[in-house]
Amino acid sequence: MKKLINEPEDVVDEMLDGMVAAYPDRLRRLDDAEVLVRKDAPIDGKVGIVSGGGSGHEPTHGGYIGEGMLDGAAAGEVFTSPTADQLESMIEACDGGEGVLCVVKNYEGDVMNFDTAAEMAEMQDVEVSQVVVNDDVAVQDSLYTTGRRGVAGTILVHKAAGAKAADGADLEEVTRVAEKVVDNVGTMGMALTSCITPDKGEPTFDLGADEIELGIGIHGEPGTERTEKASADEITEHLTEQVLEDLELDDGQEVLTIVNGMGGTPLMELFVVNNRLQELMDEHGLETWDAWVGDYMTSLDMEGASITVCALDDELKELLLAPADTPGLTVTE
Amino acid sequence: MKKLINEPEDVVDEMLDGMVAAYPDRLRRLDDAEVLVRKDAPIDGKVGIVSGGGSGHEPTHGGYIGEGMLDGAAAGEVFTSPTADQLESMIEACDGGEGVLCVVKNYEGDVMNFDTAAEMAEMQDVEVSQVVVNDDVAVQDSLYTTGRRGVAGTILVHKAAGAKAADGADLEEVTRVAEKVVDNVGTMGMALTSCITPDKGEPTFDLGADEIELGIGIHGEPGTERTEKASADEITEHLTEQVLEDLELDDGQEVLTIVNGMGGTPLMELFVVNNRLQELMDEHGLETWDAWVGDYMTSLDMEGASITVCALDDELKELLLAPADTPGLTVTE
Repeated sequence: MKKLINEPEDVVDEMLDGMVAAYPDRLRRLDDAEVLVRKDAPIDGKVGIVSGGGSGHEPTHGGYIGEGMLDGAAAGEVFTSPTADQLESMIEACDGGEGVLCVVKNYEGDVMNFDTAAEMAEMQDVEVSQVVVNDDVAVQDSLYTTGRRGVAGTILVHKAAGAKAADGADLEEVTRVAEKVVDNVGTMGMALTSCITPDKGEPTFDLGADEIELGIGIHGEPGTERTEKASADEITEHLTEQVLEDLELDDGQEVLTIVNGMGGTPLMELFVVNNRLQELMDEHGLETWDAWVGDYMTSLDMEGASITVCALDDELKELLLAPADTPGLTVTE
Repeated sequence: MKKLINEPEDVVDEMLDGMVAAYPDRLRRLDDAEVLVRKDAPIDGKVGIVSGGGSGHEPTHGGYIGEGMLDGAAAGEVFTSPTADQLESMIEACDGGEGVLCVVKNYEGDVMNFDTAAEMAEMQDVEVSQVVVNDDVAVQDSLYTTGRRGVAGTILVHKAAGAKAADGADLEEVTRVAEKVVDNVGTMGMALTSCITPDKGEPTFDLGADEIELGIGIHGEPGTERTEKASADEITEHLTEQVLEDLELDDGQEVLTIVNGMGGTPLMELFVVNNRLQELMDEHGLETWDAWVGDYMTSLDMEGASITVCALDDELKELLLAPADTPGLTVTE
């Protein structure tokens, strides 16, 4: 294993300090916790939006802290849920008196710990609401989940809920729009290579030199199919068909698409995928309202990509267009 | 080789179409050319800013097209200079009557073809000026250069010159600030792994499982030293010392730093590097005015990073703070 790290057990700690060192005017770290929050958190009178999960998916989630998106993000060890204690500290630090929405990716550890943290925070009189994101259409249950996994579509939940909260909506309304995104988004991913965790130092799974894995999760969980390597167009077609089959969209539906890199994929290749993806949207009579291409939800150094499609209505478009100013995503007026 | 591509010879063409498909309101592609320009180019009365070079360094350069940065970017084949004809088409397409500044990374092919293109454009009565960026402190001459190589510091030239042009300055003034950045910026990089070009399909150079290469270029050109793998802190210290030795900054000097990923490096690791980098700035009595962390100037799928330090004065700070709205870099007011 060759990585730009020091001791594997320090990587999350040093990463968080390195993030604060990069954005000292925007982020601060809670004392003795693997939690980042907006420098000005809590924002009085605004619903707080928080998320969290295992590390290794950067810029998810800490990179989405800022105006118009998250107030806080908890970083567990690599591919490991943050503890309930850490999550509770985050929830309390982000409560400006109007309650806090927790955006949770559907993994058993995350869901359990967020549940416990919410109960603990409620005992401190913080109103807490929760949305579980499960956009991965590849598998029903999986290694770490009951039900579908939460993957790149989560960023759209951060964006829509964050915009609604910035606009002064109450916890119920913010939760409603977060759920609307969850109801309208689907994602499917694939890997050319396995990721290598700092701790283990070897590939999480073995893929032959001519093999790829379709339907992969963001921790190297098994996908739906291991197959021979294929062209970018063939892969894009397969992923897109699966997502569209799940979403069952009407002709002319406006959508936002994401071509998401898994961490080790050159941007060049993501644009090649987007080229075919936008042709496919046309062929299916769908209208791309916005197309994102980049590394939004990664798996360490994994090479591969996922495709996300989210059906939009006027409300979601307005929320996605609203200003956001975070290290990982900026939307200007 | 496993890559998300179709035929290797189509990768640049499909990438460019995929970029336009992602940003159809911002970018357009010149007919029959591997050149992207601002959708609204040429901008009447504004000095045009253009750049270009071999592909494989994305988001460089096409990703920096937009308000406050570039008007156009030419994309050669992977790691190969664009032709003079393509560069000339770009220069003419970006001339709004006030002339065009070409920002050229110092590689022999690029410099030669930009020179020829400038002569051709001048025959069409376009005023052309040129700045050659050579921020890589690692080597004096190299495989593809006479003199030092141009690497990640180039993005700061795009930003400063772009802001000056957006402010209505004339070609001479825009050129002056571009040269000021070149005079004040230094970069040094390292690789954990080689990149693999689509064409060749194998690593450009061999690095043992326990080896790293310091002072590497962005095409896998040899660096200054092949050494045993080291910790992120040790690597960061080595790169930073080399850059600072070259720049010879005064105590208290304000700087902008960049931790740049080479394409295959997880963001997590770049933040670990930034953590030590900012400590080193402190230890050297330097003041970090802004710290960038991300993939700005890549080498396909290479794992590794470069560190850039740029000394700032009030003029450069103002130009770097000015709004920019491009796919690869957004600065809000």
